[in-house]
Amino acid sequence: MTRYERGLEKLNEIDGQAGTNVVESLKDIAPDFAEYLIEFPFGDIYSRPGLDVRSREVATIAALTAMGTATPQLKVHIAAGLNVGLSKEEIVEIIMQMAVYAGFPAALNGLFAAREVFEAEEA
Amino acid sequence: MTRYERGLEKLNEIDGQAGTNVVESLKDIAPDFAEYLIEFPFGDIYSRPGLDVRSREVATIAALTAMGTATPQLKVHIAAGLNVGLSKEEIVEIIMQMAVYAGFPAALNGLFAAREVFEAEEA
Amino acid sequence: MTRYERGLEKLNEIDGQAGTNVVESLKDIAPDFAEYLIEFPFGDIYSRPGLDVRSREVATIAALTAMGTATPQLKVHIAAGLNVGLSKEEIVEIIMQMAVYAGFPAALNGLFAAREVFEAEEA
Amino acid sequence: MTRYERGLEKLNEIDGQAGTNVVESLKDIAPDFAEYLIEFPFGDIYSRPGLDVRSREVATIAALTAMGTATPQLKVHIAAGLNVGLSKEEIVEIIMQMAVYAGFPAALNGLFAAREVFEAEEA
Amino acid sequence: MTRYERGLEKLNEIDGQAGTNVVESLKDIAPDFAEYLIEFPFGDIYSRPGLDVRSREVATIAALTAMGTATPQLKVHIAAGLNVGLSKEEIVEIIMQMAVYAGFPAALNGLFAAREVFEAEEA
Amino acid sequence: MTRYERGLEKLNEIDGQAGTNVVESLKDIAPDFAEYLIEFPFGDIYSRPGLDVRSREVATIAALTAMGTATPQLKVHIAAGLNVGLSKEEIVEIIMQMAVYAGFPAALNGLFAAREVFEAEEA
Repeated sequence: MTRYERGLEKLNEIDGQAGTNVVESLKDIAPDFAEYLIEFPFGDIYSRPGLDVRSREVATIAALTAMGTATPQLKVHIAAGLNVGLSKEEIVEIIMQMAVYAGFPAALNGLFAAREVFEAEEA
Repeated sequence: MTRYERGLEKLNEIDGQAGTNVVESLKDIAPDFAEYLIEFPFGDIYSRPGLDVRSREVATIAALTAMGTATPQLKVHIAAGLNVGLSKEEIVEIIMQMAVYAGFPAALNGLFAAREVFEAEEA
Repeated sequence: MTRYERGLEKLNEIDGQAGTNVVESLKDIAPDFAEYLIEFPFGDIYSRPGLDVRSREVATIAALTAMGTATPQLKVHIAAGLNVGLSKEEIVEIIMQMAVYAGFPAALNGLFAAREVFEAEEA
Repeated sequence: MTRYERGLEKLNEIDGQAGTNVVESLKDIAPDFAEYLIEFPFGDIYSRPGLDVRSREVATIAALTAMGTATPQLKVHIAAGLNVGLSKEEIVEIIMQMAVYAGFPAALNGLFAAREVFEAEEA
Repeated sequence: MTRYERGLEKLNEIDGQAGTNVVESLKDIAPDFAEYLIEFPFGDIYSRPGLDVRSREVATIAALTAMGTATPQLKVHIAAGLNVGLSKEEIVEIIMQMAVYAGFPAALNGLFAAREVFEAEEA
Repeated sequence: MTRYERGLEKLNEIDGQAGTNVVESLKDIAPDFAEYLIEFPFGDIYSRPGLDVRSREVATIAALTAMGTATPQLKVHIAAGLNVGLSKEEIVEIIMQMAVYAGFPAALNGLFAAREVFEAEEA
């Protein structure tokens, strides 16, 4: 299996349709970047055996909430968190905890992103 | 049990001596801030039942690595991660994954911080 | 008076309706976070006697402008600044000054946020 | 030629209509800031002989993509890049490269900004 | 009075020896940047009448603490805050407040910077 | 030629000894990360034909200066800039320009990093 194939499988497992949408959206502007996105993050990193995928999503949701510059990607990974078995309650806990490290605005904006994702899941 | 007592217990459980050192170091400049640090992050947030403490440390290590502005605190939480049952391998995986979300320099600087903590643990 | 009561009083004094709106908006996704928001920032920090509330809003408007990741919260605090006695001119000065420390885009985006708040106040 | 005149000339050369729009948009909220924006960035910095204007736009597009807090200004400078002779392909390369230094979300959001600017240019 | 002269006067008034040191330190690497530093931040911004210099230092200390990427400059402005009449207590309050907006690590690192400056003042 | 081989060649061309040092320093803590560092940034991105390597270093120096969280990596790329043909004057211009986009402290800290690299080159 190539890095690309392994990455595509991982991307589908974790991000589902949202991952495919991102890849599609890159086709006209930067098709090679879609490949890198599949190969490095998913083919290389998420495929590594040393950390379970649930913990990987905990890490990503925490980091994107704290950074505060990547709302679209945070939403994708909140949905991914649900896909890999995190409960809504756990996701809310991760985001609330970021108030300690990145301030209340970062946590607030993360919580509002989570609400959007949760509502879309229920619709 | 007051928030302060609950927080102090949690701080000791998670951060051990490093937590006590931070609190001590605040005594002359901002003693009230030492109290807030015990009460809100540890008495309120880390004491919540909705997320296991291992996942809380995954989140914190990820966020502090990604932010790149809090090396002393990252080191405290790498040690805390070991305290609550994360393996060195898992901590390295979390930090490497941050290359995807915050860039290679953030991951590199996180890995160098981890090496320092691991070496100090072994000494 | 509990921390919660003191915080709620302070939140109403400073943020007025905008504060209540944020608290309301958290009710369905993270009601405990609404409590923390009232208790720690407003019940603990803003209630401290060592710095006047006008200077506290100068600090918050400056920080949120410089960070550039918290536009909704910046707008709440621009309105709060007016509530606690800062003039529009003073708020514009604070934001312009951030060009020096965080760059022209941070200041520009802060000024556009201020214009929105000023226009809403006049409507 | 005053700093203001030199800056205005440079702003028109580099940013074209988008620059004028930013200056206009400041007139009601902070007219002096429009002057500073013309004088320091364009009258002082971009007018310096030590670096060609094409390289200056490479630097600005890279920095604004990496920072991730200045999307409106990034779009202005993607258009400016085209004005001073960068090809669309080169701009896409600069933005993709930022995945290495600031993470994939920063690069993705930069690419989506570029697509918007490129589409507007073609319309 | 030229912008340069006005800026130099303001820099001396606010930053004292620390300001002169920064300007000196730029002489061999980027002498023109020393001029810009005197002219734009101090000759243009800090010289404006619309906000008192005490409030300007509140804003700067808050922003630099929150950003977490400018420790040397934060120290200069903590000393400047003392120069323009802020008490140590007020400076500590500003920095502690940043825990709310930028997280506890930003506030902690700011407090440790303040302690260094206060100790140097006393020595 | 594999991605690894192509990346190693590129790393040596651009970063010289400093690149080898970073790779070496990862051997004990995260050897796989050294591979990724060679493969993705250098084997994939820097090897792409769409942008000359000189412009790539302009972009990287600008971004790392603006971010302000990656001083060790900024120094490596200032040296890399000299390796690929940027003059000291051009590097100073790139860094000074960042005052406009990320503030004066980011530019100052970048200039001090450049001075260190220039002095080491001369030694």
